[in-house]
Amino acid sequence: MKRKICVVVTARPSYARIKTALTAIRSHPDLELQLVVAASAVLERYGDALKYIKADGFEVKSTVFMVLEGENLVTSAKSTGLGMMELATVFDNLKPDMVITIADRYETLATAAAASYMNIPLVHMQGGEVTGSIDEKVRHAVTKLADYHFTCTEIASERVRRMGEHAEHVYTTGCPSIDIAADVLKAPELDFNPFSRYGGVGDPVDLKQGYVVVLQHPVTTEYESSRKHIVETLYGVKDANLATLWFWPNVDAGSDGTSKGIRIFREKEKPVNFHFFKNFEASDFLKLLCNSKSIIGNSSVAIRECSFLGVPAVNVGTRQSGRERGSNVIDVDYDRHQILGAIQKHLSTGKRERSNLYGDGKAGVRIADLLSEVPLHFEKKLAY
Amino acid sequence: MKRKICVVVTARPSYARIKTALTAIRSHPDLELQLVVAASAVLERYGDALKYIKADGFEVKSTVFMVLEGENLVTSAKSTGLGMMELATVFDNLKPDMVITIADRYETLATAAAASYMNIPLVHMQGGEVTGSIDEKVRHAVTKLADYHFTCTEIASERVRRMGEHAEHVYTTGCPSIDIAADVLKAPELDFNPFSRYGGVGDPVDLKQGYVVVLQHPVTTEYESSRKHIVETLYGVKDANLATLWFWPNVDAGSDGTSKGIRIFREKEKPVNFHFFKNFEASDFLKLLCNSKSIIGNSSVAIRECSFLGVPAVNVGTRQSGRERGSNVIDVDYDRHQILGAIQKHLSTGKRERSNLYGDGKAGVRIADLLSEVPLHFEKKLAY
Amino acid sequence: MKRKICVVVTARPSYARIKTALTAIRSHPDLELQLVVAASAVLERYGDALKYIKADGFEVKSTVFMVLEGENLVTSAKSTGLGMMELATVFDNLKPDMVITIADRYETLATAAAASYMNIPLVHMQGGEVTGSIDEKVRHAVTKLADYHFTCTEIASERVRRMGEHAEHVYTTGCPSIDIAADVLKAPELDFNPFSRYGGVGDPVDLKQGYVVVLQHPVTTEYESSRKHIVETLYGVKDANLATLWFWPNVDAGSDGTSKGIRIFREKEKPVNFHFFKNFEASDFLKLLCNSKSIIGNSSVAIRECSFLGVPAVNVGTRQSGRERGSNVIDVDYDRHQILGAIQKHLSTGKRERSNLYGDGKAGVRIADLLSEVPLHFEKKLAY
Amino acid sequence: MKRKICVVVTARPSYARIKTALTAIRSHPDLELQLVVAASAVLERYGDALKYIKADGFEVKSTVFMVLEGENLVTSAKSTGLGMMELATVFDNLKPDMVITIADRYETLATAAAASYMNIPLVHMQGGEVTGSIDEKVRHAVTKLADYHFTCTEIASERVRRMGEHAEHVYTTGCPSIDIAADVLKAPELDFNPFSRYGGVGDPVDLKQGYVVVLQHPVTTEYESSRKHIVETLYGVKDANLATLWFWPNVDAGSDGTSKGIRIFREKEKPVNFHFFKNFEASDFLKLLCNSKSIIGNSSVAIRECSFLGVPAVNVGTRQSGRERGSNVIDVDYDRHQILGAIQKHLSTGKRERSNLYGDGKAGVRIADLLSEVPLHFEKKLAY
Repeated sequence: MKRKICVVVTARPSYARIKTALTAIRSHPDLELQLVVAASAVLERYGDALKYIKADGFEVKSTVFMVLEGENLVTSAKSTGLGMMELATVFDNLKPDMVITIADRYETLATAAAASYMNIPLVHMQGGEVTGSIDEKVRHAVTKLADYHFTCTEIASERVRRMGEHAEHVYTTGCPSIDIAADVLKAPELDFNPFSRYGGVGDPVDLKQGYVVVLQHPVTTEYESSRKHIVETLYGVKDANLATLWFWPNVDAGSDGTSKGIRIFREKEKPVNFHFFKNFEASDFLKLLCNSKSIIGNSSVAIRECSFLGVPAVNVGTRQSGRERGSNVIDVDYDRHQILGAIQKHLSTGKRERSNLYGDGKAGVRIADLLSEVPLHFEKKLAY
Repeated sequence: MKRKICVVVTARPSYARIKTALTAIRSHPDLELQLVVAASAVLERYGDALKYIKADGFEVKSTVFMVLEGENLVTSAKSTGLGMMELATVFDNLKPDMVITIADRYETLATAAAASYMNIPLVHMQGGEVTGSIDEKVRHAVTKLADYHFTCTEIASERVRRMGEHAEHVYTTGCPSIDIAADVLKAPELDFNPFSRYGGVGDPVDLKQGYVVVLQHPVTTEYESSRKHIVETLYGVKDANLATLWFWPNVDAGSDGTSKGIRIFREKEKPVNFHFFKNFEASDFLKLLCNSKSIIGNSSVAIRECSFLGVPAVNVGTRQSGRERGSNVIDVDYDRHQILGAIQKHLSTGKRERSNLYGDGKAGVRIADLLSEVPLHFEKKLAY
Repeated sequence: MKRKICVVVTARPSYARIKTALTAIRSHPDLELQLVVAASAVLERYGDALKYIKADGFEVKSTVFMVLEGENLVTSAKSTGLGMMELATVFDNLKPDMVITIADRYETLATAAAASYMNIPLVHMQGGEVTGSIDEKVRHAVTKLADYHFTCTEIASERVRRMGEHAEHVYTTGCPSIDIAADVLKAPELDFNPFSRYGGVGDPVDLKQGYVVVLQHPVTTEYESSRKHIVETLYGVKDANLATLWFWPNVDAGSDGTSKGIRIFREKEKPVNFHFFKNFEASDFLKLLCNSKSIIGNSSVAIRECSFLGVPAVNVGTRQSGRERGSNVIDVDYDRHQILGAIQKHLSTGKRERSNLYGDGKAGVRIADLLSEVPLHFEKKLAY
Repeated sequence: MKRKICVVVTARPSYARIKTALTAIRSHPDLELQLVVAASAVLERYGDALKYIKADGFEVKSTVFMVLEGENLVTSAKSTGLGMMELATVFDNLKPDMVITIADRYETLATAAAASYMNIPLVHMQGGEVTGSIDEKVRHAVTKLADYHFTCTEIASERVRRMGEHAEHVYTTGCPSIDIAADVLKAPELDFNPFSRYGGVGDPVDLKQGYVVVLQHPVTTEYESSRKHIVETLYGVKDANLATLWFWPNVDAGSDGTSKGIRIFREKEKPVNFHFFKNFEASDFLKLLCNSKSIIGNSSVAIRECSFLGVPAVNVGTRQSGRERGSNVIDVDYDRHQILGAIQKHLSTGKRERSNLYGDGKAGVRIADLLSEVPLHFEKKLAY
């Protein structure tokens, strides 16, 4: 009897962070993959991860619409509750032997709570990291619900143990997203036209003289300020006067403010060297980064994959505060001048040294092997 | 402007554990109480806490039906999700300054997640304790979502800090349930007739020669075994041949097994010295315990209030394992012989020394004062 | 490509009313059966239809817990809403070509609304009947959502057309429950021991001198009176002094009052010739009726199957008012004297003439054939 | 004791259709207004009716987020189910004597079902009309759940009676939206600048030479075609070469297609005499219509208010098919040439005769009086 491993993907970024593990689970002789796609991962507006997942050849066992309209704090809570209800039904019908939940977005608590309440051994990917905002609370709450912890860094594992988890349930697997980065490094040249492949808004811009990539999400605990924050980044980047590829943020409380800031900037400034994209397939996005001068914003990609790839990063504001980082990152405030300064410093320095901080590129297979081997248990106590 | 303190009561036992704090909040000059009653606390079948709450003169701002039928693991998960959705709406309409969630039942995660996702400072009562079962996971997950921790014991506070909570957010307030016990101790005689006041099932039994009280809940991680476990207790107690006052268990996955075990025992054995009750008003229950020879089962009352009252307790099985205990407790397995032996030992020894392990009887006022004084914050990071 | 026919069974009685159609759909060369079991049909407390469905060899595609605890009007509404949400997900994953909803219980609106909102052609079984209570509103609302109407009687079809449905979408198929009755009539003797097969509560009673069967549900619009009503029936039947087989009511607002009335009667009267059952497999129940002196209560079985079987029926109160009936029925008020009088009249008269009012015993096959032939449409307008 | 009248507003258009009744209820000596705002009425993206409601001075008892992201058929069903659950809780806490639901959008079934299941007398506004699409099913299903019917036209009342409703529960009150139109007619000149008051997208256009107004919603049963349909209207209107004020559609399955069509048209054609608005305050919108050359699209405003105001209307496609209309309407297919032709015909003819088809301008007060006088009943049977 193969172990049935149910993986719940709830967002575009989470898919990138689990994809090589999905492949490894699917091809493992002792495992059966049960893939569930839910939340913003089924919504066109947030990049329609479902489309990419199917294009990658994965069979999807169930899809669940669970995101409420409103993009505010109330709807984040309600979407999570709704997800918990429906995922319980999904698990009751699929009867998995283990459930995997990924990272720390608000709706991941739905997966974690449903599985742990149903006595299904729960694996949490990417626990033990420290950032800011509600993600922080969610991530550690999921740690306390999970039976196994597959972390990205040694320090993360250490934190999970200090929170009272037993050492034999904590594994530093590295992040599967680094596996994709490792693949990209084998052929890193930009071998596709981003504008013809992904469309987007605005005229194509000339990438030959170098370009920067921007990806800035709203911060849920700074909900009211998301518009003000995005404006600083918009003008900081504009003043750098480089070809700019700007990516739309994910669904989250506050992204209406972020979106509105971007829209008004476009109407007012009609920036000719800006192009706006929604989402790229993960390895295309990494290739784009590999060939960029810098990534700006507050995405974790800048901290994680870009440390592995050696891409210079300008990290704006509080969203990634506390997260371990390599030498590729310059941290700045929500301030257009600091942002501009950091971009210029990176331009003068160029590419950075690569680091294995977040993984060695073999996480997917390592995870599948662990899933086939660890004991199936769902009871635990504090280690102290 | 008074601080609006929203307290969500979801079960009979939780009401007993917060009642003196509710009174203190209501009469505090700087606080306004917003009381929400939900889950099994609105269901007649589980003791109808709502009725007692209204009888105690509290104004109830909102009631929420949220428990799904089935009493199994799936429905526990779904009820919690449903509660999260509806409590988000309640909080959105009441706009509290702080929310209080109590202890560790599965549905308390609904309150905790809704409040923390909505950036409302969350206070968790009774964190840091160690037991078994799903409660363990829920309790510590709520700790990671909460901004303030009002614990019952020094060791519990220490555990909360070790889990990474900042010391300045952790207060050892003691348990408000001990406040009621302290009140009962001022006039501990059994001054009411339990049968005429609370009805119940079975003929009245003669309490004059001494009696025992039994309260045994199903254990969610031992779902399948709940019927076998209750049978051991039923026969262990029967063999002690004492007047027995048996209390019906709470709603929880597995209580159908527990209930069925009890019903079949009644049909088969027609026990003449057993009487079955649903629920008592908290102080009546404590008076009943004060005058009993022993409490048997796996209720936390046996560990907490009874240590303060010095009532001998036979603690059966795993549900309270890990919880700190006074000298009044004898632990036994799910085994009728061990249970009988422990009862007999207690009968030969009599009352035990009182202990302040779980509180000094002044928790309610202490909590209200803290609620009026602590800063309103909802962001946090691991302390390490 | 076979047409995928999704049938949602939400209660024990509904299963009996669709079973022969399920068999016919399953074995039809152009149809594929997608069976979903939900609501009280998955709950042990209400007869656990799921167990019988599986025992009958049907594959169940999905099960959904959706009934909230409380058994009151609020929880009926909430359960229906919850069901609508979850069934939408189920339909989205199963992608049926047609959906079938059965009869008029509150939760059938969930199936009907989910399917019609999703542009899936909806078939309603048993529309056009007239009773009382909330069922009346639900039944006709479902008619207005449905694309096809498979009714039991000619008068029902006529009513559906008068409500504005187009004649070409209305078929008088007869009720599949009559198919089972027709099968039972082929070998109607009581060839099993009800007590050993179904257990129940109370000592076995002697059936040799004749017995009556009682089945009385609470009436949702007379919520407060359900206990008073059941008491009249209890004493009316008791005074008849016959062996009595009493069946527990379904989940519905008010059944707590009904249940309480029965429990108190048992405690007080300790009736020696009463035996209480939960639920029988449908054909066993019909056999029991075939051999009984009379059925008493307000179940539709007394009106429908019993008219086909010729079993004398005492119909109590308003629940079936308006429903077409054969000559086997005597209608009485909630009054113990009238009930007793009607029982005695039936005893003196004996069995009645059989009637094809509700079907000819071939409904199941007729329904499957229609499902394979009718056009798949989901748009409609009032016929006037 | 005043009668508590709970009105649930779930969309911008519904607010316009109930507003004068709200005012009349609020000021009626025997009535107390309990206003609940939910669904798209609380979402900024769909016009934020809540803001206008508060600006109009109404006290809002409860707000409910209940719309799921996705704007497809699955999410329409799920949003309705979610609304039914939450509105049940709202009604359980507000304890209204009557509930009012308005018109026929998918989510109005949530209000209707929750109220009728809870035995609260339900008033349905605007029943008995005939259109196309899912609205048709919803409207008549709500009729079958409702206890009172306040219709807009005599023919609508006749249809409601033919569906089996008792004549004494059916009142032709006229539509409250006509009350606003009657008020506007007292001072119909365009006394505000639409661009400065409402912003919108695109440069201001010159209104002095005459302008047209466009409002076209997606049709749920023609989900896949919504983009193709909007394109015909876009080019038909463009070819008329008039100043064009285009209003964004409501939330509904398919509006993503509609929105996308509009966005691509704008990018491609960069139309200089088009301006895009989201929503206007109702009387401002009517003033704008009064002074327009024509309204184009498939909004019911073109049929209802514009017949009263005598504004020429081009009605495109199936959405309003079956609805009674005055002499102001020209019906056309989804065809740019027909659309252009109808606009040109209207331009040559000018304003039309006014009609009282949908009301006499006194509906609000009439409704409040009825609400204070009709018996409170919640049981009904088919009239035949």
